[in-house]
Amino acid sequence: MNSELRSALQDKIDNLNKPKGSLGVLEEIAMQVGLIQQTLTPQLCHPCHILFGGDHGIEREGVSLSPREVTWQQMINYGRGGGGVNVLCRQHGFTLRIVDMGVDYYFDPVLYAHIIPRKIRYGTRNFLHEAAMTEEEWEQALAVGREQVDACHAEGSNVLCLGEMGIGNTSPSSVLMHLFLDIPLQQCVGAGSGLDDAGIRHKLAVLTKAVQHFHDTNNDPSATDTIRYFVGYEMAAAIGAMLRAAELRMVILVDGFIMTACMLAAQQLDPSVRDCAIFGHCGDEGGHQLMLQAMNAQPLLRLSMRLGEGTGALCAYPIVASAVHLLNEMDNFQHAAITKYF
Amino acid sequence: MNSELRSALQDKIDNLNKPKGSLGVLEEIAMQVGLIQQTLTPQLCHPCHILFGGDHGIEREGVSLSPREVTWQQMINYGRGGGGVNVLCRQHGFTLRIVDMGVDYYFDPVLYAHIIPRKIRYGTRNFLHEAAMTEEEWEQALAVGREQVDACHAEGSNVLCLGEMGIGNTSPSSVLMHLFLDIPLQQCVGAGSGLDDAGIRHKLAVLTKAVQHFHDTNNDPSATDTIRYFVGYEMAAAIGAMLRAAELRMVILVDGFIMTACMLAAQQLDPSVRDCAIFGHCGDEGGHQLMLQAMNAQPLLRLSMRLGEGTGALCAYPIVASAVHLLNEMDNFQHAAITKYF
Repeated sequence: MNSELRSALQDKIDNLNKPKGSLGVLEEIAMQVGLIQQTLTPQLCHPCHILFGGDHGIEREGVSLSPREVTWQQMINYGRGGGGVNVLCRQHGFTLRIVDMGVDYYFDPVLYAHIIPRKIRYGTRNFLHEAAMTEEEWEQALAVGREQVDACHAEGSNVLCLGEMGIGNTSPSSVLMHLFLDIPLQQCVGAGSGLDDAGIRHKLAVLTKAVQHFHDTNNDPSATDTIRYFVGYEMAAAIGAMLRAAELRMVILVDGFIMTACMLAAQQLDPSVRDCAIFGHCGDEGGHQLMLQAMNAQPLLRLSMRLGEGTGALCAYPIVASAVHLLNEMDNFQHAAITKYF
Repeated sequence: MNSELRSALQDKIDNLNKPKGSLGVLEEIAMQVGLIQQTLTPQLCHPCHILFGGDHGIEREGVSLSPREVTWQQMINYGRGGGGVNVLCRQHGFTLRIVDMGVDYYFDPVLYAHIIPRKIRYGTRNFLHEAAMTEEEWEQALAVGREQVDACHAEGSNVLCLGEMGIGNTSPSSVLMHLFLDIPLQQCVGAGSGLDDAGIRHKLAVLTKAVQHFHDTNNDPSATDTIRYFVGYEMAAAIGAMLRAAELRMVILVDGFIMTACMLAAQQLDPSVRDCAIFGHCGDEGGHQLMLQAMNAQPLLRLSMRLGEGTGALCAYPIVASAVHLLNEMDNFQHAAITKYF
C-alpha cells in the first residue's frame, strides 16, 4: 500500500508544471506529508505547539551559564505573549500550550492560568549521583505528553511542533547522543546558552563522571533505563508526545539540539516515530549537526538560532506548508497544456 | 545617523528577552530591515512580487534543455493561478505582477489580461554575434522596471520580491558572473533546468566564444555596455526594479542564480543597492553558491530549488517577517523582570 501511494505521489509531483525535481527539498517534504497522512492531497490543519518546562538536578553542578531561575521566569513570561515562541506562534497560527512538567517554582494557578499544571516534582534529581527520575515519574511524564497530544488532536490538529524550557537540558541531550549514537562525549558537549571554553571543559568533566557512574551502577540497561536516568520531565513529556503524535499520524516538527535528542530517544522506543518527523532547524550547538548527520536527518533551516522553546522548528513551518500548497495547487502538465520541460 | 541607529537597534536586539545572539541570522535581518527603513520599529507592508518574462537570442544556440516556447506557455499559465509563483504568492500574501518584457509570442490582451504588456521586442538578439539589446532598449527596459516598482510603492508596498521567466537566462547570468567577479567561466556554467554533461560542455563552448567575441569588438566597455550586451529584457527590467526599490528604501528579496546575477549587475551601477538586498535562497545551479560567496552574500535558505520565478525568495519571506515580528513583539529584560541570561 505504501509503495503504491509513494509511486502515485511521485507521479503527481513529477507532473506538476515545473522542471522535474526543481522544487528540491519541498518535493521530499510533500512526499513525506502525503505518506504520513496516507493521501495524495495532504492538508495541514490547526497546527499546535506544545512547550514543556522542567528543571534539572544536574544544573546544580554548574553545567549551564544561565541560572535555574530563568526557567520559571520564562514560563511566567510566556503568559504575557512576549516570548520568542509566542511571537512565532502568532505569526504562523499555532495554538500554544505551555505545560509545567517539573519547574522548580510554585506557579499560583490563579496568577498563571496560562500554564497547564502537570508538575511531577520541583526539578529532576541530579544524574551525577542517581537517576534523574523514578520509573513511575517516567511513566507519568510520558502519559502527560500523550495526553497533551490527544488534546491537540481532538481540536482537529494534524501538525505538531514541540519545544522546551529547561535550564541545563543540553547536558542530558549530549549524554543521550553519546550513548545512543556512540559518538565520543567530547564531540557531544557544547556551549549551551553561552559557556566559554573553561565552562565547556567543566561540563564535559561533569558529564563524563555522570556517565561513568551510570555505567558502574547499571548493568545492561534498557533504552528506557538509559533515557529516564538522564532526561528532564519536560524531555520525557516531549518523548511521550512524539510517540503519540506518530500513532495519530501527525506531522512532527523537530526543533534544535534538545528536541532532536528527544526524537533520538523516541526512536529507541519506537523506530516508526521517525516517519513523522520533519527536522526544522540545525543550530550552532556543538554536536547538533553531528547528531543530525548520525541520524541521517536533513534540517530545513540553518539560521544559527539557539533560543530553544521550539522557535527553530516554528520558523520552518511555512516551508512545510509551501510544500503542501505546491503539491495541491500547482497545475499539472496535462491541465496546463504546456510542453513538458526539464 | 546610521551608526547611531545601528547602535540603537543593536541595543534593542540585545535587550530582547533571550540569550544574547540567540536568534542568529534573524538578528542580522532585523538589523538590516531597521536600517533600510531607518527605524527601530520596522514593518513589512503590502509585499509585492514582480515577475518579468523575456526570451533570449542565445537560446537558439542550444544552451538550454527546455525549448523557448515554455516561456510564453508559462506566462499564460500564471493567469490560471497554477504556477509555483502563484501558489507561494497566495500563501504569503504577495500581490503578483506578471510583466511581458520580451517574450517571443503575441499575447492577446483580451485573452491574457493578467499580463502587463511592456514587450520591447520578440526576444533579445543573439549575443554570440552581437549585443542582446540596443542602448535605447536597455533604457526602456530599466524604465519599465522602475515604473513597476513605483506602482507597487504607490500601493503602499515596502517589500519587493523579483522573479523571472526566460528560457536560456542562466547563460547571460553565468557570463555576468564571470566578467564582474573574475571567476573562470567554467565555474560559472551549470546545468540550468537540467543539462547533462555534454550539454554543459556545449553551453560552455558557446559562452566562451561569445565572451571572446565581446572582448574583440568592445574596447574598454563600461558596466552598462557589458550588462546590456548579454542580459535579457526581463533581467534589465529586474535591474531597473532593484535600483528603484533601493532609492525608495524597500526591502528587496533576491531569488536564485538569475536574480543574484541581476543584483550583481545592479551593484555595478549603484553599490548602495546592496544595502536593501536580502538573499533568499541558494540553489543547486553550478556557480550560484560561488557567486554568493564572491558577493559576500548569505542566503537564508538552501532547499535545492531551481524553478525560478522568484519562488526561492518567496519561500524565504516568512523568515524575514519573523525577524521583524521578533524585534517588535518580544518582551525586553526590563519589562519582563527576568534575570538577564546568556
